[in-house]
Amino acid sequence: MPFRVLVAPALLAAALFAQSPQPQRTPTPNDTLVSPEVAPDHRVTFRIYAPKASEVTLGGDFLTGRAKLEKDEKGVWWFTSEPLTPDFYNYSFLVDGVKTLDPKNPQIKPGTTSNDNMFEVPGPEAAFEDTLPVPHGEVRIVWYQSSTLDAMRSMRIYTPPGYDGGTARYPVFYLLHGGGDDDAGWSTMGRAGFILDNLLAAKKAKPMIVVMPNGSMPRPAGAPAVGNAGAQDKFADELLKNIIPYVEKNYRVLANRENRAIAGLSMGGGQTLRVAPRNPDLFAYIGVWSAGVSAQATASFEELNSAFLDHPEKTNRSVKVLWIGVGEKDPLANTSSKNLVAVLNRHGIKNEFHESPGAHTWINWRHYLNDYAQLLFR
Amino acid sequence: MPFRVLVAPALLAAALFAQSPQPQRTPTPNDTLVSPEVAPDHRVTFRIYAPKASEVTLGGDFLTGRAKLEKDEKGVWWFTSEPLTPDFYNYSFLVDGVKTLDPKNPQIKPGTTSNDNMFEVPGPEAAFEDTLPVPHGEVRIVWYQSSTLDAMRSMRIYTPPGYDGGTARYPVFYLLHGGGDDDAGWSTMGRAGFILDNLLAAKKAKPMIVVMPNGSMPRPAGAPAVGNAGAQDKFADELLKNIIPYVEKNYRVLANRENRAIAGLSMGGGQTLRVAPRNPDLFAYIGVWSAGVSAQATASFEELNSAFLDHPEKTNRSVKVLWIGVGEKDPLANTSSKNLVAVLNRHGIKNEFHESPGAHTWINWRHYLNDYAQLLFR
Repeated sequence: MPFRVLVAPALLAAALFAQSPQPQRTPTPNDTLVSPEVAPDHRVTFRIYAPKASEVTLGGDFLTGRAKLEKDEKGVWWFTSEPLTPDFYNYSFLVDGVKTLDPKNPQIKPGTTSNDNMFEVPGPEAAFEDTLPVPHGEVRIVWYQSSTLDAMRSMRIYTPPGYDGGTARYPVFYLLHGGGDDDAGWSTMGRAGFILDNLLAAKKAKPMIVVMPNGSMPRPAGAPAVGNAGAQDKFADELLKNIIPYVEKNYRVLANRENRAIAGLSMGGGQTLRVAPRNPDLFAYIGVWSAGVSAQATASFEELNSAFLDHPEKTNRSVKVLWIGVGEKDPLANTSSKNLVAVLNRHGIKNEFHESPGAHTWINWRHYLNDYAQLLFR
Repeated sequence: MPFRVLVAPALLAAALFAQSPQPQRTPTPNDTLVSPEVAPDHRVTFRIYAPKASEVTLGGDFLTGRAKLEKDEKGVWWFTSEPLTPDFYNYSFLVDGVKTLDPKNPQIKPGTTSNDNMFEVPGPEAAFEDTLPVPHGEVRIVWYQSSTLDAMRSMRIYTPPGYDGGTARYPVFYLLHGGGDDDAGWSTMGRAGFILDNLLAAKKAKPMIVVMPNGSMPRPAGAPAVGNAGAQDKFADELLKNIIPYVEKNYRVLANRENRAIAGLSMGGGQTLRVAPRNPDLFAYIGVWSAGVSAQATASFEELNSAFLDHPEKTNRSVKVLWIGVGEKDPLANTSSKNLVAVLNRHGIKNEFHESPGAHTWINWRHYLNDYAQLLFR
């Protein structure tokens, strides 16, 4: 019966009904269109079928300004980038002014108000953040009831390989996203789980739990998402009264200052600066990425944080790493980051400053995470 | 000093730099546009600012056919639905023929080739799947190395409240998605974790682990995603050789037939029919949703599954629930589902058939999950 055994699955499978009926329609160039397409030389071509559009542009974190697409005779608009360094990137189209995700790319960088697409240019420079055949931890989607916000909130929690089934307790790293993102940002566009997996496989970092909370706070209509004292205080409250207690109750953690780290990018860097210096018993590791203190705010920053700034010997004993990073093309954040460094130096507070190429992008933040995580809990 | 303490945070916060610089531009109606907007009477209004477009339509699982939007004098296109039963729904726009996600709605129903938006009409009918203040399990994003596909693959695994830190072993439910979705489908659009949380809080289901693997198999260009024997056999291989062994090695499970359930929708229903009857020692609970066997395939189905079909006393002892569900407006799947029931009845195999209103939609599948999960592991 081997012949029948070989044939029958095909008959059966074709007949097992498995799809909703599709209306008959004329094929279009869209049916076979590929976007984005990464060439061997790392140029990336973006395509979208929009025969009736009069203008299509592309924005992304690998571009300065927007790129104009050209339309071919079939109504497919296209643009080919310069060769890109292997990494993850984001983009979206504007089709006659309407923000349009690439209908051919399901990879999403999630956001609080809308989404973008993401893609990878694979290669050795992206190996630190790639999905490699190494042991993988888990990223857990966790819902908890927030007493400060009277709402259900979510966070993402990375547990390292071996957490389940083990008995060890782990240090905890609180990792904060920026404005416009939510708790999914670091584990999707931020590649946090993969970066940790690869560091752990190479024995370049200590096993740790990484907690990625939702830093976007409810706010009155029209109030800015970031640079908002009310929202920063709400987040500090949420972190201290709900997030840290939840984690320390529900996970096998080492619950002391030497085993707690915090870092945040942009809005999350502001939240980090808001909460860490004023809670010196909580965090031995502090990362402030693409954020800082403006010259105008220096006096109030110094006043609010006098306990931290005015006792450098005590602070320098308790803070093991104070890591400030910013892109050289990130004008406002660069200025405020350098101002923060100047304030710290003036007070004799040890810190390390890392200025990287590029601007206010995830390209930088993934590298900062990769560098900073290696210094933690040593 | 209370005055300064109250004032300083605002000064500081305004100055903590936290956002990339935005170019100056003229405000548009897009800036304040809300979409979708659910009215108290459960009508839902969809809006998109597209002043240059000549036609905008809307597709979604709450519509039969596509709805045409109207354009107002400001260039905002809009459509208001009939009152919708409280539930979760999906949709996307076509703007001059280009599939466009709602730029104002970050909620995504993920897919393998592109995405749709989702939204909720809250209300009592949606309480079974809502995010309620009850104890929540975790949905874990798990990466593992597939030996059958020679690739890293992901799955989502729901662990019930109390799993962490406990010592109990749990039954396992393998829950399969349909064509065009991936392993994120059941935990996003499918609301699987929330449905289980609510059932467990009401003591309507036994605590269980729910494994949601990726059922989309690599296939040659142009080959159909579903109704494809090669892909079905690849998935069966993956389930038996990688997914079940991974789960039983890494989670505290009860690893026997009485404590294993399987169900799948559409393509996943085909996969369930492919793998469960031929592995009678594996699954005591079988769910086939919006899938079945066509009249033409009956002979080969019966031949392939003769051990299962031709010994009804043995099968009826070992299969505790065989649950078939389909929407009355799902023409092909309805026919093939009823044909499956006829085959089973002709062989004396006990089964229950549930015909629900509606078509080939997640609206049905969430309800099937809610009904079926209550019957498991009793």
